[in-house]
Amino acid sequence: MKEYYLGLDIGGTKILTGLADGEGNIITRSRRATEADLGEEKIIENMLATIDDVLKKAGATADEVKTLGIASPGPLDSKKGIIIENANLSWKNVPLVEKIESATGIKTLLKNDANAAALGEKWFGSGKNVENMVYITISTGIGGGAIINKKLFSGVNDNACEIGHTVIDPNGPLCGCGNHGCLEAFAAGTSIAKRAREAAAAGKSKEMLELADNIIEDIDAVICAQAAYQGDQVAEDIFKNAGYHLGIGLGNVINTFNTEMIVLGGGVMKASDLFLDEAIKTMEEVALSGPLEMVTVKEAELGSDIGLMGAIAVAMEDRLVIDD
Amino acid sequence: MKEYYLGLDIGGTKILTGLADGEGNIITRSRRATEADLGEEKIIENMLATIDDVLKKAGATADEVKTLGIASPGPLDSKKGIIIENANLSWKNVPLVEKIESATGIKTLLKNDANAAALGEKWFGSGKNVENMVYITISTGIGGGAIINKKLFSGVNDNACEIGHTVIDPNGPLCGCGNHGCLEAFAAGTSIAKRAREAAAAGKSKEMLELADNIIEDIDAVICAQAAYQGDQVAEDIFKNAGYHLGIGLGNVINTFNTEMIVLGGGVMKASDLFLDEAIKTMEEVALSGPLEMVTVKEAELGSDIGLMGAIAVAMEDRLVIDD
Repeated sequence: MKEYYLGLDIGGTKILTGLADGEGNIITRSRRATEADLGEEKIIENMLATIDDVLKKAGATADEVKTLGIASPGPLDSKKGIIIENANLSWKNVPLVEKIESATGIKTLLKNDANAAALGEKWFGSGKNVENMVYITISTGIGGGAIINKKLFSGVNDNACEIGHTVIDPNGPLCGCGNHGCLEAFAAGTSIAKRAREAAAAGKSKEMLELADNIIEDIDAVICAQAAYQGDQVAEDIFKNAGYHLGIGLGNVINTFNTEMIVLGGGVMKASDLFLDEAIKTMEEVALSGPLEMVTVKEAELGSDIGLMGAIAVAMEDRLVIDD
Repeated sequence: MKEYYLGLDIGGTKILTGLADGEGNIITRSRRATEADLGEEKIIENMLATIDDVLKKAGATADEVKTLGIASPGPLDSKKGIIIENANLSWKNVPLVEKIESATGIKTLLKNDANAAALGEKWFGSGKNVENMVYITISTGIGGGAIINKKLFSGVNDNACEIGHTVIDPNGPLCGCGNHGCLEAFAAGTSIAKRAREAAAAGKSKEMLELADNIIEDIDAVICAQAAYQGDQVAEDIFKNAGYHLGIGLGNVINTFNTEMIVLGGGVMKASDLFLDEAIKTMEEVALSGPLEMVTVKEAELGSDIGLMGAIAVAMEDRLVIDD
């Protein structure tokens, strides 16, 4: 009998599902709209439809699938298989694993997206050859996942590696979590966007205003990056400042986890040339020489597939550890 | 044949060695002066003498000892068994494990003192019933050790959990490591002492000056604590400020490790009533609600035996994990 693994990446706008062989190679894929506004049952129906899709395309059956891994934004409870909340889907305490298992008969595992991405990069991306790494996603927020002795360390209730919410300057800007000066409040995409809008509102950057057709509210991190690439000094400085604070966060991660590798991913990394040099410079100052000499900082390799490959890695983790 | 374990705690002034049975109960003890100023060979001679002492007292032989665990200040390389440096002993790259093994014939394991203490508290102290905990020592410096899935996580080269050197305010005071605003620069004993001397020098605390017989250089954290207990507001504020920053560090540890427990030890904890309330208050603000609700903060239970019990736990770790 064949042995397949399923990965399902559930986002606010799309569901991405892949069927993989025992080596993690994707055989068939399916992508459907999440239709978040149509409610819980419809979303789950769409998830199940993508599973049907990939099985049919491959001529495979559910009982040939060993495990299904789901990567989802949190907060969630991976042990109980429950989505506690999901800002994109207006879900509250949805027993997702139970629902999917009873509909498909396939053993299902759930992890938050940053943790799944960490597993994806460990087994299929930048971290293939290391035993200890921290994955950090710099996106609308900043999240992370730690691999320790080749295995995901999720913490007691899936909150390990929430490094976006470590305070690096108590006099810093207000964070969405209510504290001041979290790493996320300095260096996430929404924080960069906020700084950019403040600068535009203060009349400091015509370039950003023009790129947003004079609508300040439309200025986001992408427009800030565009302005920086066009030479706008204010926009450049906003990214450099984010890089400086990211560097403190990276230094702290090095002094805390002492891993062989840090992998950086997330949408903001598309503009990494605007802030990464500054981040690495600061990181090298903050990190102690002992752990610094052991660590390599790499960009994530899996690109837009990171969610899907992460979900497949969630499904395959036990097997991958044993085979390795 | 009987099965014993040896623990050896090497400090700047004394060597403390204990022989334990298979349950970690100390049967015999020995304590000798380190005689750090007499050089490497003499120190090792003294270590070996304590081992002889405890074996003789118990009527035991070296071949009845399964493993010897050594707890030492770092930096050190636990895999190679080498003390890289030791501020107290002026050692440089001493292959301590090799020397002890060849002299005794006993398999020897080496860990840094904070990591060993974490193991000690996990198996014989506050953390007996938890699988994930972080031990933090607040002493002249601030160090730590993380237990993950019941096992010590040392990092790639023994630098995991160096949370004393995570930056929590880049505009903060200069740290011994060269950075500004490390946790250690705010809340370690030497930092409290420095703040106290600065206050006394600025004429802000007669109380501390009197307690130090008007010699500013003699003001240390103990005198600052004495003054605070006598109602000196400046001294009280110094401890409160240390507590506030410790609270940020604890919140960051919770958001990073998401463990069931944090255990606090080290000499400064003797004055915990001067700063712990403030630390817990700040910690509860900084920590995310998800990991906060899972964590308990406890004081270390092993007292002055923490180094010795840590060393015994280093010797016994594999057995303890299996038996548990």
